[in-house]
Amino acid sequence: MRIGVLTSGGDCPGLNAVIRSVVHRAVVDHGDEVIGFHDGWKGLLECDYRKLDLDAVSGILARGGTILGSSRVQPAHLRGGVERARGHVADLGLDAIIPIGGEGTLKAARLLSDAGLPIVGVPKTIDNDIASTDVTFGFDTAVTVATEALDRLKTTAESHQRVLIVEVMGRHTGWIALHSGMAAGAHAIVVPERPFDVEELADVVGKRFEAGKKFAIVVVSEGAKPREGTMDFTAGATDVYGHERFTGVANQLSVELEERLGKEARPVILGHVQRGGTPTAYDRVLATRFGWHAVEAVHNGRFGMMTALRGTDIHLVPLAQAVEHLKTVPVERYTEAECVL
Amino acid sequence: MRIGVLTSGGDCPGLNAVIRSVVHRAVVDHGDEVIGFHDGWKGLLECDYRKLDLDAVSGILARGGTILGSSRVQPAHLRGGVERARGHVADLGLDAIIPIGGEGTLKAARLLSDAGLPIVGVPKTIDNDIASTDVTFGFDTAVTVATEALDRLKTTAESHQRVLIVEVMGRHTGWIALHSGMAAGAHAIVVPERPFDVEELADVVGKRFEAGKKFAIVVVSEGAKPREGTMDFTAGATDVYGHERFTGVANQLSVELEERLGKEARPVILGHVQRGGTPTAYDRVLATRFGWHAVEAVHNGRFGMMTALRGTDIHLVPLAQAVEHLKTVPVERYTEAECVL
Amino acid sequence: MRIGVLTSGGDCPGLNAVIRSVVHRAVVDHGDEVIGFHDGWKGLLECDYRKLDLDAVSGILARGGTILGSSRVQPAHLRGGVERARGHVADLGLDAIIPIGGEGTLKAARLLSDAGLPIVGVPKTIDNDIASTDVTFGFDTAVTVATEALDRLKTTAESHQRVLIVEVMGRHTGWIALHSGMAAGAHAIVVPERPFDVEELADVVGKRFEAGKKFAIVVVSEGAKPREGTMDFTAGATDVYGHERFTGVANQLSVELEERLGKEARPVILGHVQRGGTPTAYDRVLATRFGWHAVEAVHNGRFGMMTALRGTDIHLVPLAQAVEHLKTVPVERYTEAECVL
Amino acid sequence: MRIGVLTSGGDCPGLNAVIRSVVHRAVVDHGDEVIGFHDGWKGLLECDYRKLDLDAVSGILARGGTILGSSRVQPAHLRGGVERARGHVADLGLDAIIPIGGEGTLKAARLLSDAGLPIVGVPKTIDNDIASTDVTFGFDTAVTVATEALDRLKTTAESHQRVLIVEVMGRHTGWIALHSGMAAGAHAIVVPERPFDVEELADVVGKRFEAGKKFAIVVVSEGAKPREGTMDFTAGATDVYGHERFTGVANQLSVELEERLGKEARPVILGHVQRGGTPTAYDRVLATRFGWHAVEAVHNGRFGMMTALRGTDIHLVPLAQAVEHLKTVPVERYTEAECVL
Repeated sequence: MRIGVLTSGGDCPGLNAVIRSVVHRAVVDHGDEVIGFHDGWKGLLECDYRKLDLDAVSGILARGGTILGSSRVQPAHLRGGVERARGHVADLGLDAIIPIGGEGTLKAARLLSDAGLPIVGVPKTIDNDIASTDVTFGFDTAVTVATEALDRLKTTAESHQRVLIVEVMGRHTGWIALHSGMAAGAHAIVVPERPFDVEELADVVGKRFEAGKKFAIVVVSEGAKPREGTMDFTAGATDVYGHERFTGVANQLSVELEERLGKEARPVILGHVQRGGTPTAYDRVLATRFGWHAVEAVHNGRFGMMTALRGTDIHLVPLAQAVEHLKTVPVERYTEAECVL
Repeated sequence: MRIGVLTSGGDCPGLNAVIRSVVHRAVVDHGDEVIGFHDGWKGLLECDYRKLDLDAVSGILARGGTILGSSRVQPAHLRGGVERARGHVADLGLDAIIPIGGEGTLKAARLLSDAGLPIVGVPKTIDNDIASTDVTFGFDTAVTVATEALDRLKTTAESHQRVLIVEVMGRHTGWIALHSGMAAGAHAIVVPERPFDVEELADVVGKRFEAGKKFAIVVVSEGAKPREGTMDFTAGATDVYGHERFTGVANQLSVELEERLGKEARPVILGHVQRGGTPTAYDRVLATRFGWHAVEAVHNGRFGMMTALRGTDIHLVPLAQAVEHLKTVPVERYTEAECVL
Repeated sequence: MRIGVLTSGGDCPGLNAVIRSVVHRAVVDHGDEVIGFHDGWKGLLECDYRKLDLDAVSGILARGGTILGSSRVQPAHLRGGVERARGHVADLGLDAIIPIGGEGTLKAARLLSDAGLPIVGVPKTIDNDIASTDVTFGFDTAVTVATEALDRLKTTAESHQRVLIVEVMGRHTGWIALHSGMAAGAHAIVVPERPFDVEELADVVGKRFEAGKKFAIVVVSEGAKPREGTMDFTAGATDVYGHERFTGVANQLSVELEERLGKEARPVILGHVQRGGTPTAYDRVLATRFGWHAVEAVHNGRFGMMTALRGTDIHLVPLAQAVEHLKTVPVERYTEAECVL
Repeated sequence: MRIGVLTSGGDCPGLNAVIRSVVHRAVVDHGDEVIGFHDGWKGLLECDYRKLDLDAVSGILARGGTILGSSRVQPAHLRGGVERARGHVADLGLDAIIPIGGEGTLKAARLLSDAGLPIVGVPKTIDNDIASTDVTFGFDTAVTVATEALDRLKTTAESHQRVLIVEVMGRHTGWIALHSGMAAGAHAIVVPERPFDVEELADVVGKRFEAGKKFAIVVVSEGAKPREGTMDFTAGATDVYGHERFTGVANQLSVELEERLGKEARPVILGHVQRGGTPTAYDRVLATRFGWHAVEAVHNGRFGMMTALRGTDIHLVPLAQAVEHLKTVPVERYTEAECVL
């Protein structure tokens, strides 16, 4: 068989592990040929690719990023390109395409699949917000990086007798905040699923100081927002140049808390370190298994499906179902986390 | 309510996280009192304990080991002590005991539970061999430590043009070998579930050298054994003093492979580093959730049960069922791993 | 003898290692008594302290922060307090005081020493800008944390085809930027010692893209400033509330570079993670040696001195000399670093 | 100019950083051409090499091992090959050779230099035993890896109430044991420079238990030996096959201490993990500087010299002097370390 693989969307630790696994399983065990499209869907539309043999994927398992490059998917662009994609698939004699990507990518994958192209998707997001899989690779690495930062910040907050507002990734869901906050023993966790009330938050932190503690760590998702009417809030603060570019919630919260508590409060924005670099062992195993099962799905003709973790097993779920809704933090998970405050 | 907690068996990253979570949930949210027995079941039998309030568990979330101490359980000893335990539970006015431990501990827990004591167990093993839970805390840390070591060993094996036989923990099951081997891209993985044939192994490694590669990494569980009749083998090699104390498989395999391959082969025994030190973020979250749900089970009167992870949820399973059989590496997981050799 | 120890100024990995070493050397080897003042000089002025025996320092070697607490020194306040300090030293029967701190602390130490108090200083700064010692503990940890972040950011910058402007600590000197930039292979390093010209910087980065590279990493010290007249620049940007609080250089540079290069440029501000958490092995050894030699200096009556590393040996240098001038990055070190761009 | 570079001897984190730095400095700043010989001196003798341009060294800064391969130097072999080497240098039009290696390599370098070949050496050893430089790259990484392992082992030793005898690298000198033991707070440190008396050692550890402590960590260099007449000792224990291959000191010490103390004592042999994998930031900076200055030495015609760190500066020292004697742990450094036991 001849299989094309591509990576699309934001960086995510484990992408290379999937690529390597696809090539190993396909080439070594099935005698397939694998090509990799450059820069995501763009590579498919422009027929820009290279051959991927064992040498091409040697030594990439633990490397962050993607050897194939990536680009943000533009669904409209892709919609107009279905026929072009079909043409390239035919010209290249491809039996299957394995796109590895997040919500946008999987929606695009479904579009092409519905148009009859032979697609098996592999889900990818550090945010862990894809509903049809227990977890996605990249998430454990992001949580690990955030937790290590929080571990470090605790001693420095304590020495400086400060409140630190630590902003982690998560535009629509609070999974990274929830897990890293729980793992590091944060004193408050603020997620997009539950708009916050700054008075309540100040109250929680204030009680901690009243109890004699000398510092507090608040973990907040970048997408967190105040409950309506409780605080002036600019989603995406404006920088000194008038550009709306900096995520604003930690900055704004630190000002508000400082005023209410009379304690120094400082924002720390972890940023891109959460999505780069070598994946954790957990993510490497998950990514490798996803790659393996994607190749199996191709050989079993299970097109229009996506790999998913359920418990300890890898299942296939329809692409249609995969992107139906976002997996948000349920209230009971949030309640568990509150107990460790 | 008044709850007693104890840790029993070998060291495992995450024990302190469970203790902390039990105390937080019980004290803060339910207004309970918690005591901790020293050195496992011994503390219960000898009524050796201390009070655990919030201060007592401050700062322990990320610390390895157990602040309560531990000891290996001796079930026979415990059997004779059921009445003594019952007496202490009554004297101390305990409404529940939460033992945190491995197979032996959980068997003991069942014994006491069958005798009518109010027990909720929390499973613990770095080996991940408890069948009724998807995974146990401590396992991810062990795999992470082993993977980091393997990452380092790869470059040195390559520079020295050697075969390295890396022995990881796992007396009865190969989970640590499987996951760390897969995560690090080992070239062969040897587990207790599949007795090895040294000729076959030499063949796999030899083919790698024939293909022009300059080194190989073999990961082997400490409990791995050769297929009967294929190799002289001493389970637990004898040291120079005549003590049978060193795990022998990596040592013996390195000699056999060196003779067959004509390449330098060296054993590396990772040993106790796999079970000590700060837990990974994954293990801290799982341990914290286990502690939280154990307290809930106590308050719901669900005695004779054990916390377990199923998918992304924490369930309760009967202690009786929990220790029925060992969770071994199924053949399909091993097959997945082969593809990355 | 009776020795008082205190920590003053910002958090710095290794403070606890010094405290522990002082106590071990003094108590175990000399039979001294040690007390620790709380919250820096404040503790001395307010006679707020506790006894430090072996138990008090058990387990703190690898812990970030300081068990004694710290506060920023206010020299004026201290100047008025010399007599008060002298009184407390007499009342407590102290034979020596060992203050551990940065430039401000050492200046205060000199003040008290000149007034006749028995002082041996231990220098501390993650910035590495104290001239009379080859290096200070805390610096290696800060560089290590920054380097690990840069390692991660490289893959994500590559995947996203971006310029990342990474701001590291260093208000007056560029040591952390120089070492972390060199260690991680940054493509440009901007330090306070050499005001930058944004056109030149855009040129360097632009050439990299012209050569076919897909990303660039610029490391910039928080205290870096543009060459006069080359760029509008606000030292300390204003936030949305009108507070002048965010370090601005990475934010402003990213805007300027994006406009000039036509490539996405994003700021990443590493912040407080650089000064918290467990110290590296290097810093633990240096801190332990500083503590040991401070006690020796006390026993040898070498007051008014400070411990310093010269090559591989610990020397004593006069406090007067220690704080005479800042150790800045010399031009030849900068030249070395340029070669790795 | 045309420069040849080679790496020789055991693996050492930082080799690739030197190679990269040599290429960057030579190619970018001087317009030189660089070739790399394969597998150490063997590559020079057999004229086996490849061109090293900027692409060839892209991405290797943080990678362990050596992209050029290595082999153990056989001085006798090399002695017979001087004329062959001279011939290849002439044929290839080389203006200089930069060998990167340990004691054996530098002796060989001196041999060739004395024979008139244009050599600038770069010292390399994780053992830190080269006298003419304050420190060698690779050492900090080895100490860091050993310290991280010791950190982990402390909690597990405590939980199991055991003595752990941890064997680290160092055949002739105890630098790694000294620094990692000091960094991790080991309770005894045993180095080759001071033959140990097992009774004394048992006494030190025994007193710790008498003082109520529940565990002890002893760090021992692989080359440590007992004081004559104090203990039966087999340097290099024999394995079950009659092969003399396992370093024996930790194994033998654990048996002896267990018998004397009546406490479980277990050996842990860290082995090759200490010399592989990504170098620390410290080692990357030092290696990069060594490479830079080696190229400068070439351009300044300073042949027969070797790069060396003195304080914070890189100096050149004669190869003749460089290998005169081993840098051993001086007694005063050992005394410093004792205070932290």
